[in-house]
Amino acid sequence: MATTQLNGTPYTPFPEDEYRQRVARTREKMLEQGIDVLLACDPASINYLSGYDGYSFYVHQSIMLIQEVEWPLWVGRAQDLNGARFTSVLPEANLIGYPDEFVQSTEQHPMEFICTLLRERGLHKASIGVDADNYYFSGKSLGILRAQTEGKVVDVGLLLNRVRTVKSLREIAYIEQAAQISDLTMQQAIDMVEPGVRQCDVAAEILKTQVAGTAEFGGDYPAIMPLMPSGPTATCPHVTWRDIPFQAETVSVVEISGVRHHYHAPLTRTLYLGTPPSEIRRTADVVVEGIDRALSSAAPGALARDVHAAWNTVINRHGIYKESRCGYSIGLGYPPDWGEHTVSLRAGDETVLEPNMTIHFMPGIWMEDWGISISETIRITEEGSVALCGFPRQLLSK
Amino acid sequence: MATTQLNGTPYTPFPEDEYRQRVARTREKMLEQGIDVLLACDPASINYLSGYDGYSFYVHQSIMLIQEVEWPLWVGRAQDLNGARFTSVLPEANLIGYPDEFVQSTEQHPMEFICTLLRERGLHKASIGVDADNYYFSGKSLGILRAQTEGKVVDVGLLLNRVRTVKSLREIAYIEQAAQISDLTMQQAIDMVEPGVRQCDVAAEILKTQVAGTAEFGGDYPAIMPLMPSGPTATCPHVTWRDIPFQAETVSVVEISGVRHHYHAPLTRTLYLGTPPSEIRRTADVVVEGIDRALSSAAPGALARDVHAAWNTVINRHGIYKESRCGYSIGLGYPPDWGEHTVSLRAGDETVLEPNMTIHFMPGIWMEDWGISISETIRITEEGSVALCGFPRQLLSK
Repeated sequence: MATTQLNGTPYTPFPEDEYRQRVARTREKMLEQGIDVLLACDPASINYLSGYDGYSFYVHQSIMLIQEVEWPLWVGRAQDLNGARFTSVLPEANLIGYPDEFVQSTEQHPMEFICTLLRERGLHKASIGVDADNYYFSGKSLGILRAQTEGKVVDVGLLLNRVRTVKSLREIAYIEQAAQISDLTMQQAIDMVEPGVRQCDVAAEILKTQVAGTAEFGGDYPAIMPLMPSGPTATCPHVTWRDIPFQAETVSVVEISGVRHHYHAPLTRTLYLGTPPSEIRRTADVVVEGIDRALSSAAPGALARDVHAAWNTVINRHGIYKESRCGYSIGLGYPPDWGEHTVSLRAGDETVLEPNMTIHFMPGIWMEDWGISISETIRITEEGSVALCGFPRQLLSK
Repeated sequence: MATTQLNGTPYTPFPEDEYRQRVARTREKMLEQGIDVLLACDPASINYLSGYDGYSFYVHQSIMLIQEVEWPLWVGRAQDLNGARFTSVLPEANLIGYPDEFVQSTEQHPMEFICTLLRERGLHKASIGVDADNYYFSGKSLGILRAQTEGKVVDVGLLLNRVRTVKSLREIAYIEQAAQISDLTMQQAIDMVEPGVRQCDVAAEILKTQVAGTAEFGGDYPAIMPLMPSGPTATCPHVTWRDIPFQAETVSVVEISGVRHHYHAPLTRTLYLGTPPSEIRRTADVVVEGIDRALSSAAPGALARDVHAAWNTVINRHGIYKESRCGYSIGLGYPPDWGEHTVSLRAGDETVLEPNMTIHFMPGIWMEDWGISISETIRITEEGSVALCGFPRQLLSK
């Protein structure tokens, strides 16, 4: 199994040294912003800095990176300490569990436990960096942290996500494996969609293929469930499935991602059941032309907004206008998002693209009563960019 | 299809009147606490009050229940307005979309949009209730709301979750359907686990069965992915799966939930591959005795802590001690949790049990190097309680 071949410890997908480098790069960014302690609650950030992996993020947990301490501390529910022992590279002394009375209690909050811990370690006057807009860092958490420490609590926003944005070659290898799973999954979905087949039965096969992966490597759960706008909901980008059947002479969109060790490679295609009307065919041709143009503009040194502009130039020339962003940075992710929240391909984004950034180029077009979505996961290379999935880039019909 | 049979609108699983009753009950609770506007960001709460359903909760969205306005406002990304039109019972005037520039931007935050909206409606001096510890209400959101309104922002905590805790008969019917799917899914998992079979292949079949449901009704995605502690990770309650094989002469735990319209019925069983050692068999017998005792103590009028005490009495008499809670309220849920965060079966919880509460009785026992988990979803009835799944309540072996 690839998991066990990569390194000596069976339960981390990367060798210890990779985590060490991530910690070092994060520390540098902390230093630049004068942060003594980084407190990160996003499961992807916890995984990134330690390897920790478990569906335990429905309770409060965090990784605490202290400038003077070699490895970060993992702070979570005591029940999950064994999970941290098995899945992380952290030494035993760095694993700290809080008692179960803190779980979903109105009387005690895990952030109080963390504040006590900070005090015990003489860090209550430190400058503490947090991502104040993360799903896993609630308003209450921020309030308690501010009230029970004496230093400065700094919203460092996406500091750690920015470290995550440029991938290592090992990370790229997993995203390429995820892309293989995406291709398999999309083929499965397209083969199966027929008038009269229930949406839930197609979703079931999609999830099975995503999770089983290939004979060589297994898949993981996606941070976003299969999105399946279809027929009357074809204009609703984020609907999932119901137990209603697909309908002839309608558009169906399938947006999925293969996943390998929580690394994603999203892929979207649109299928018409029947002979597509000429308006839909023409629009699809414009979308494909726009993607081709945008992808050839995506290269090291280009700005995120340049890629958006390349896309926009093509579609606007054909009288199509789209208000939303046409892509975003992706990689390691847990529910509810496979996006990294850093780079967005839109007018205002001045991010300079670098080799081994990975981006979901997702230019969904949502018309009055139908939609077209064709998307690609791309890797910025030394020379330009490359799409990681191999699925035909076109409107599909059957 | 059950979806379309239940009422006139094809995309809400309940008739409009059920949502109307939920709104009315929530309004009463708001009144008791002097709340003019309830701002809820949890996707389950949004769904509960409006029907809205989409995997769009990776961006900020909310439901805003105003005392004087008949239906709540849905405030989300403009791209998701069509999704709200199709899946919610809300009138068009109550659907409000924010422009895409607000999405994952460092310059503009959706909560600023909401504050503007409150000002426009003359509600910026109102008493605004929020659940400050929800996953989907970040520290930054609370900060902006406090800074940009002039009234009182009140942390009402689980106000809405408490309304959700007692189910209607229609909700019970969906949880019963979810329990049917749980039984099918568990059977599939137990049939498939064998030494040498990859964990990911079993997880794939589990997800397929969860999502396909039955021929009569489809399944949905679970808020918690299949938990599969096994062999060396059998002591780690929240690990999922890898592409490593199951091993002979080890314990495997499977914790899953069937899901119907986002209503859950979790179920856990433990399987020993081989002949279980006597210590494991004896412990399983104690667990089953403890569950039987606890379930017969769960009845209207009993306190949550009474059920915990009944369980504890049995296991302590056999020299087994467990620190964590042994169950919690469940129902409508989106990632990352199927729990409602209200009732916990533990020493301090004085909640009085009422008919049509639904609880995941989950007494996981985690030993030094193995674990036993057998769990049941129960419904509190008029007379006592009933387990909703039919799967044999015992240690399994093969």
